Amino acid sequence: MLYCIRMDVRVPHDVDPARFQTLVAEEKTRAQTLQREGKWRHLWRIAGEYANISVFDVADHDELHAILSGLPLFPFMTIAVTPLARHPSTIA
Amino acid sequence: MLYCIRMDVRVPHDVDPARFQTLVAEEKTRAQTLQREGKWRHLWRIAGEYANISVFDVADHDELHAILSGLPLFPFMTIAVTPLARHPSTIA
Amino acid sequence: MLYCIRMDVRVPHDVDPARFQTLVAEEKTRAQTLQREGKWRHLWRIAGEYANISVFDVADHDELHAILSGLPLFPFMTIAVTPLARHPSTIA
Amino acid sequence: MLYCIRMDVRVPHDVDPARFQTLVAEEKTRAQTLQREGKWRHLWRIAGEYANISVFDVADHDELHAILSGLPLFPFMTIAVTPLARHPSTIA
Amino acid sequence: MLYCIRMDVRVPHDVDPARFQTLVAEEKTRAQTLQREGKWRHLWRIAGEYANISVFDVADHDELHAILSGLPLFPFMTIAVTPLARHPSTIA
Amino acid sequence: MLYCIRMDVRVPHDVDPARFQTLVAEEKTRAQTLQREGKWRHLWRIAGEYANISVFDVADHDELHAILSGLPLFPFMTIAVTPLARHPSTIA
Amino acid sequence: MLYCIRMDVRVPHDVDPARFQTLVAEEKTRAQTLQREGKWRHLWRIAGEYANISVFDVADHDELHAILSGLPLFPFMTIAVTPLARHPSTIA
Amino acid sequence: MLYCIRMDVRVPHDVDPARFQTLVAEEKTRAQTLQREGKWRHLWRIAGEYANISVFDVADHDELHAILSGLPLFPFMTIAVTPLARHPSTIA
Amino acid sequence: MLYCIRMDVRVPHDVDPARFQTLVAEEKTRAQTLQREGKWRHLWRIAGEYANISVFDVADHDELHAILSGLPLFPFMTIAVTPLARHPSTIA
Amino acid sequence: MLYCIRMDVRVPHDVDPARFQTLVAEEKTRAQTLQREGKWRHLWRIAGEYANISVFDVADHDELHAILSGLPLFPFMTIAVTPLARHPSTIA
Repeated sequence: MLYCIRMDVRVPHDVDPARFQTLVAEEKTRAQTLQREGKWRHLWRIAGEYANISVFDVADHDELHAILSGLPLFPFMTIAVTPLARHPSTIA
Repeated sequence: MLYCIRMDVRVPHDVDPARFQTLVAEEKTRAQTLQREGKWRHLWRIAGEYANISVFDVADHDELHAILSGLPLFPFMTIAVTPLARHPSTIA
Repeated sequence: MLYCIRMDVRVPHDVDPARFQTLVAEEKTRAQTLQREGKWRHLWRIAGEYANISVFDVADHDELHAILSGLPLFPFMTIAVTPLARHPSTIA
Repeated sequence: MLYCIRMDVRVPHDVDPARFQTLVAEEKTRAQTLQREGKWRHLWRIAGEYANISVFDVADHDELHAILSGLPLFPFMTIAVTPLARHPSTIA
Repeated sequence: MLYCIRMDVRVPHDVDPARFQTLVAEEKTRAQTLQREGKWRHLWRIAGEYANISVFDVADHDELHAILSGLPLFPFMTIAVTPLARHPSTIA
Repeated sequence: MLYCIRMDVRVPHDVDPARFQTLVAEEKTRAQTLQREGKWRHLWRIAGEYANISVFDVADHDELHAILSGLPLFPFMTIAVTPLARHPSTIA
Repeated sequence: MLYCIRMDVRVPHDVDPARFQTLVAEEKTRAQTLQREGKWRHLWRIAGEYANISVFDVADHDELHAILSGLPLFPFMTIAVTPLARHPSTIA
Repeated sequence: MLYCIRMDVRVPHDVDPARFQTLVAEEKTRAQTLQREGKWRHLWRIAGEYANISVFDVADHDELHAILSGLPLFPFMTIAVTPLARHPSTIA
Repeated sequence: MLYCIRMDVRVPHDVDPARFQTLVAEEKTRAQTLQREGKWRHLWRIAGEYANISVFDVADHDELHAILSGLPLFPFMTIAVTPLARHPSTIA
Repeated sequence: MLYCIRMDVRVPHDVDPARFQTLVAEEKTRAQTLQREGKWRHLWRIAGEYANISVFDVADHDELHAILSGLPLFPFMTIAVTPLARHPSTIA
């Protein structure tokens, strides 16, 4: 099942930079693993913002929540979830 | 270039139903043509709403505007445009 | 899978009352059928508003959208969908 | 009487992790006690967010406030309360 | 039990004035009956707006909804409901 | 003259608890004095929130501001003021 | 007592133009009378909008409401009221 | 003096199309005259919306208001005005 | 030229009180100087809030920005600017 | 391609002033370089706010994102991006 996810990252100005960079690196690794597994189907940067729009393809809400809440940068993110259904005009 | 587009359709309760259904049919035809041309890359229904989330792949802002403002249901839509850049963690 | 749904009904002041009451009666019948089928698991009135909070239990986003967009009052509703996952503290 | 409650938890990045984890554990114990007493009737995780949607069944507003303001994570929560009445179409 | 209620009235410019004035008169009668019964405890006009702030004292959410949804001007109102609990600093 | 006041209290997680409790106690004393003087006419807790809805009866805007800005918790509050006029349907 | 008032006028596209122009003329007459009486102390146009920012000087909330709700264009206005107190830094 | 102006046009679905097209043509003529006079310095279409972002260069607020409120489509527009000052980093 | 300015002051709970009081005193001095010069034409306290509504009379946007951004409390303020034009109904 | 960009800068009250002033100076240098290259086409200060409205002229979304996310003050900015198309009434 598909979900459109928007993630906005906020970096507190007084966070430890080294600690944050470690999380960013872990996030990248995790994002690439999930893409290879086919669960993180699309990942785009929103131009001009520290944010992304993504499409996830997972079994159900529980798997979605487990993945998102397990992301290394989850504590710094605001996340919006939109469930996607098949559109009657799609040719895909 | 990629753009994420959200379209929300509002149907006034006193619109002529036959006229509106004609526009809906024309919209479907147009949407399928644009998908076949590769310009309307993704088209998903937002579950529970008369709305969609789409990804367009066009040459520039002018082509995007020409396509969107030419949609048969454009006068009944609220449209939000988000320019998408390449994400550093994408493997695509 | 569970979804929390909020439906707000707006009745235009110039709608034909007889036509609207027919839709209300059809909506009630449909709501009760879906409850008996176990798909519309909870249905509560929001005190003081022409609105409800509901919980649906359906197979996937497509079934959810088919049910909601097929409701007789759908053209008069604003609908908000929240996917529900299992909570780690639940004893249910 | 029934109330729909949405709780959003915000964890400040500079909070002491050990102190916070203690509160989380206490919150879980408290939530399970209240569920067993029949006062916290439903508890769902909002997929993708550190938030829940719940239904409480308590005697009155005073009991509701006493319970919510006594939750260990209350200082970190934004809470929205919606009083629920019986819906004319419910078969429950 | 106490509830703070805010009611905003919107009068469509093309509503039949005679019909609307009849509803206004019926609303006044109903409001005064409910005040005499002790259910509509306070009723204030918001200065400068076609709106009021009220306090209701009723048995439960169901009675509140029955009263509010039965008001003659209900179809023209936006209503916000806030459940009121006893405040620890009150001397009342 | 009457004013409806909503006060929302926000407690920063890193405030000194002893200092804050002192302010809370002073606030309670002040609130009770103002109630006895007839200036703080009503004081209700909003169920589920660290917030209240109140009605003040003071001579004018200047007295209102002097009272509110002098509350011990004023620096931690967001305050909304609504001037109340006599309602034509009131029997009070 | 002083109040800052913002009035936004919305003209429905299907209102009768002659009827509306009559109201506009009556509004102007009324505004000038109130200015001469010293009750409508300031009246400014918000550049680019069919809206004004005003300062009223009236006895109390009741007089304010009587004046505002009696304006010929009141049914087409959205009004926001802000009570003004004396500022400690003013030299007026 | 410079002002950034955003204009959003809303076309009611039941407006007379011929009347509206006449206004659109007059708007175009007026916009081009004002550009030639140097008062409407920039005019861009917001991609995907019936809206524009413009920069005006006029003598003062009064001239700005006279121009904007005199536009043929003014009754169908929502307008937002932002006064622009010289930026310390500009090289223009 | 006239501008309506709303300034909201937020005092972080962990700011140094002595430093802040110095800024408040400097702000008062500056406000009184600008009033005497005729540039800060009106200054009112918003009842119940640490905020003011003001009217400035300055040569142009650049002077307005220089004055506002130079206020001692500017770093703690949220400022909203509304350009004011002459109203056709004013008798001033 | 043109983009309208609004940047709002927020300076945390507890940031190190020297570190921040260094970033401000670097931002100015970078802004002037980009203006000379023709990529930062317009740069205006929003009167009364620590914010600007700008127009960028870059090859595509990726270049826009690289430039904006590389600005020295990017971590302290909220940025809004609006893609600009050619307007049918422009004479430019």
